[in-house]
Amino acid sequence: ATFSINVQAEEPIQPIQPVKEINLALAELGKKLYFDPRLSKSGFISCNSCHNLSMGGTDNLKTSIGDKWQQGPINSPTVLNSSLNVAQFWDGRAADLKEQAGGPIANPGEMASSHTLAVDVIASIPGYVREFTLVFGGEEVSIDRITDAIAEFEKTLVTPNSRFDQWLLGDANAISQYEQEGYELFKSSGCVACHNGEAVGGNSFQKMGLVEPYQTNNEVEGRAAVTGKDADRFTFKVPTLRNVEMTYPYFHDGEAETLTEATDIMGRLQLGRKFSDDENAKIVAFLKTLTGDQPQFLMPILPPSVDATPRPQPFD
Amino acid sequence: ATFSINVQAEEPIQPIQPVKEINLALAELGKKLYFDPRLSKSGFISCNSCHNLSMGGTDNLKTSIGDKWQQGPINSPTVLNSSLNVAQFWDGRAADLKEQAGGPIANPGEMASSHTLAVDVIASIPGYVREFTLVFGGEEVSIDRITDAIAEFEKTLVTPNSRFDQWLLGDANAISQYEQEGYELFKSSGCVACHNGEAVGGNSFQKMGLVEPYQTNNEVEGRAAVTGKDADRFTFKVPTLRNVEMTYPYFHDGEAETLTEATDIMGRLQLGRKFSDDENAKIVAFLKTLTGDQPQFLMPILPPSVDATPRPQPFD
Ligand code: HEC
Ligand code: HEC
Ligand code: HEC
Ligand code: HEC
Ligand SMILES: [Ca+2]
Ligand SMILES: [Ca+2]
Ligand SMILES: [Ca+2]
Ligand SMILES: [Mg+2]
Repeated sequence: ATFSINVQAEEPIQPIQPVKEINLALAELGKKLYFDPRLSKSGFISCNSCHNLSMGGTDNLKTSIGDKWQQGPINSPTVLNSSLNVAQFWDGRAADLKEQAGGPIANPGEMASSHTLAVDVIASIPGYVREFTLVFGGEEVSIDRITDAIAEFEKTLVTPNSRFDQWLLGDANAISQYEQEGYELFKSSGCVACHNGEAVGGNSFQKMGLVEPYQTNNEVEGRAAVTGKDADRFTFKVPTLRNVEMTYPYFHDGEAETLTEATDIMGRLQLGRKFSDDENAKIVAFLKTLTGDQPQFLMPILPPSVDATPRPQPFD
Repeated sequence: ATFSINVQAEEPIQPIQPVKEINLALAELGKKLYFDPRLSKSGFISCNSCHNLSMGGTDNLKTSIGDKWQQGPINSPTVLNSSLNVAQFWDGRAADLKEQAGGPIANPGEMASSHTLAVDVIASIPGYVREFTLVFGGEEVSIDRITDAIAEFEKTLVTPNSRFDQWLLGDANAISQYEQEGYELFKSSGCVACHNGEAVGGNSFQKMGLVEPYQTNNEVEGRAAVTGKDADRFTFKVPTLRNVEMTYPYFHDGEAETLTEATDIMGRLQLGRKFSDDENAKIVAFLKTLTGDQPQFLMPILPPSVDATPRPQPFD
């Protein structure tokens, strides 16, 4: 009984905890809204378009496709385990999931709707109004309630039970010797300085290109956009490495296509260390043990629009 | 026991039969492919983008959005119960679901990939290759096998147990008196001449604008494009009215936003009959009893791409 506790206590990474204290009805409503493209102006783009829960909570594109096929400025981070983040967005400009969820709905480059229109659409749909009444005890539909429900659904999107967590919890055979050697390298070479905790990241902001500058054509400047401080230029929230096998391509600009490439760049730019092919392969093998149980749920069935529902405007 | 049989025998509409003889593993593979945007050039558009199973198997847009936000020529019909169709597409140009499924993948206005590229992508993904081997007894990935699997999944997408079917099967209280009056009007005024059978449509091609011509700016010419016969201009496969409450907007051009409008147009153009508001409302109430149990299934988790997988090309 004490073995697993000892292991955990020694390690810089902790197993993902299963979700506790979920308001199920609220999360179920949130799931519908998360999948509902009617929150976008076009009626075509939902949260799940860019954070596809069939694909590790990402779109697996370098940068996202928004309303009218606009090319987004930055890679779409996973929503899996995002409740564990110190703050939301690459630059941390949203404090939590609820604050975050209002953003894309009204962002002209993403869903291109407005909070007023989104509320009007949802409030026009009797199936939703009944569910809001059940969940909130009153039929009012507001952006506050919409984002509350989406955030509650997102809290359910944790991925426990990865092979690495099984190992942390005491199953010595859950990862291979080779993968374990990758983990040892991940620790000894210093990756854990930034990628640690339950999410193996997500809990601090760090400079990209600490030892050697990162070369990119992407114009995003990172946390400086939030703090206004020059020192925060090119500082980003350290991404979670949970399910990183599924969240390709990598980095804020999506320019690293493979884990091999991302690991090589991290070694050189963050630690001043050039890994041999063998070392790199071991670390990558370790990273792939971080893939956990993906959220399993029934596809939601959305309540249909009625005659009074504002219609989507995809082409104007 | 004989009551329900008698009712069915008398009626021009039959209850939807539950699916029989499904190859479950094949359908499960097909479900993944149906949800996989990697079958498109951009990596963004899957079958489910335009036939969203959260929304009655349609996109609820007038005409669809394809690769690079191209505006499609025609309204996206539902995939629900499409296995019951006499042929596929509005003009019936595909004989069955398997033949149909190859179309959108390679259509430059839809998924904009090619069969070669789609096969290369799927064949590069170890998780898929294992599943093809399990299902087909050999690891070859081909467009034939891809479309076979998608078609098998689509066969599962039937919607039995609507209130109307419960009524057909003998539960006299499953629909209200008002809805039943709508059904009587639907029969007596002649709608059942075209909308009949298990799918309440889908089993014949008929002229749109039989009594009075249909006015539209849409340039699609209907079944004449297949037969080459001038007499088939403006002839379309009669759409199923199953789940019609969810498959707005209506007609091949998507120009009728509501069931009230579609019913009014059908009465005038197909039957030369102008329904009163009350008659119209009764028919619409009847049509809403045709919403059946929506397919309920777990969101598929897609096997991740690997280093060798061809990358999506959304912006070039
Ligand atoms: C058009 C693509 C697109 C859509 C639609 C979209 N997102 Fe995002 N999302 C992104 C991108 C890109 C980012 C990163 C933006 C940044 O950091 O500046 C992001 C960031 C996030 C984050 C922060 C994750 C992290 O680790 O910082 C969460 C959570 C999130 N989105 C949830 C949602 C929800 C909920 C919706 C729907 C209401 C949604 N997204 C709609 C593309 C999209
Ligand atoms: C000094 C902090 C720091 C150290 C040390 C560090 N990282 Fe990172 N890591 C980051 C930051 C910040 C990013 C995001 C950079 C960006 O997107 O521009 C990142 C991104 C990544 C990514 C891409 C994740 C994604 O989803 O885009 C991988 C993989 C990764 N790191 C692995 C490693 C490995 C392996 C090591 C050790 C060799 C390591 N990191 C060392 C801070 C660090
Ligand atoms: C970009 C939008 C789009 C995509 C992607 C798409 N479809 Fe379609 N689908 C349509 C449209 C529009 C039609 C009607 C075309 C016509 O009749 O000429 C259609 C017709 C169909 C039909 C015929 C239904 C009937 O009643 O005639 C089926 C079945 C179907 N699609 C299945 C699929 C499958 C399977 C995929 C993925 C391999 C797919 N579709 C991808 C828009 C799309
Ligand atoms: C002579 C054949 C015929 C008759 C009679 C007929 N319909 Fe139709 N119906 C069609 C055809 C063909 C279409 C497709 C027309 C198009 O899309 O341009 C259609 C389309 C519809 C639609 C839209 C379905 C969708 O998904 O787009 C509804 C609703 C409908 N009919 C209801 C009725 C009602 C109610 C009646 C009786 C008042 C009726 N129909 C009589 C042939 C007929
Ligand atoms: Ca990524
Ligand atoms: Ca693995
Ligand atoms: Ca329609
Ligand atoms: Mg077959």
